[in-house]
Amino acid sequence: MNVVIPVFSGVEELDAVGPFEVFGLARAAGMDVNVRMVSCSGEAVTGFHGLQIGGLGGLGDDADCVIVPGGAWVGGREEGVRLAVREGVLAPWIAACHARGAVVASVCTGVFLLHAAGLLDGVPATTHHLALEDLRALGVNAVADRVVDAGRVLTTGGIASGLDLSLWILEREFGKDAAGLVENMLEYQRQGSVLKSAV
Amino acid sequence: MNVVIPVFSGVEELDAVGPFEVFGLARAAGMDVNVRMVSCSGEAVTGFHGLQIGGLGGLGDDADCVIVPGGAWVGGREEGVRLAVREGVLAPWIAACHARGAVVASVCTGVFLLHAAGLLDGVPATTHHLALEDLRALGVNAVADRVVDAGRVLTTGGIASGLDLSLWILEREFGKDAAGLVENMLEYQRQGSVLKSAV
Repeated sequence: MNVVIPVFSGVEELDAVGPFEVFGLARAAGMDVNVRMVSCSGEAVTGFHGLQIGGLGGLGDDADCVIVPGGAWVGGREEGVRLAVREGVLAPWIAACHARGAVVASVCTGVFLLHAAGLLDGVPATTHHLALEDLRALGVNAVADRVVDAGRVLTTGGIASGLDLSLWILEREFGKDAAGLVENMLEYQRQGSVLKSAV
Repeated sequence: MNVVIPVFSGVEELDAVGPFEVFGLARAAGMDVNVRMVSCSGEAVTGFHGLQIGGLGGLGDDADCVIVPGGAWVGGREEGVRLAVREGVLAPWIAACHARGAVVASVCTGVFLLHAAGLLDGVPATTHHLALEDLRALGVNAVADRVVDAGRVLTTGGIASGLDLSLWILEREFGKDAAGLVENMLEYQRQGSVLKSAV
């Protein structure tokens, strides 16, 4: 399973690195997982709190699972996710990954890129608690569960919930024991609810 | 409060980025906190799972709080924390920060750099559950709490527990409400126990 995490200027650091860590641990434990971060240009990006992430490739077309982080939404400025939506490169790529059969998941306000990709019609979805109203205002069925699993479209709550999302995806793909093993290595106990939606 | 996170080749990504995120959110919320990552050479480093972190400065001498991440200890190879201990640059710097009055904390197997800095004599300490026996074998009073607060020396359990450590430090420095605010932004509920040791 190739897990690809697209990052962009203003990305919330833990939104991206939490899942990167979980899938990295899965790989280290011998599961058939690769994880990498990518950017639209393949160039380094600087996150919302100033972390500079380098060594990125371009978006590519081999993703089996795309994890879209959020960032800088709540401030309302034209940066982070909002800027990434306006630039119009990531959303079509996400839509193309989904059309090719990839699982697409968002962390936190990364959900607005899934919306821009047209993946939330008739699908329950969630995001950071401070952005739920914005999601609802777009006509999305916004719910407050920590992880919302609508099959090949998954969304999750705020920043740290990317850990729960990633462990849930591991559980779906590799089973409860495999996810538990990573949870144990990570020293993290999953929090909150998973809503499984029959879409 | 200047929070400085020294990173090195083979660093466990979340050990470093978890605290970076927590203190970044504290700053975004208006608290008097700066956080940055540094490396011995000031050059980019690549973490254990392949994340490349750039834009680093050198170690500097302005840290009020040093957060030392771990990495690659359990495999037993000469990389990550074990290599950083052998190279002999970080531990003396950590000791000098502590001697100047800084709070020094480790995440996960970063504790072995605190040991190399001579900061664990007579101090209870903790680390990743798979490394507790190695810590005990060095003569350290190794305990299994999630966060161990011995005043100006703090240690914490495995990878994700760096979030709890950082929130605890915020609570100590800025109060319960401030820590709670960041916890809420992060959408993370603290886990495990804090041992306060009267050293």
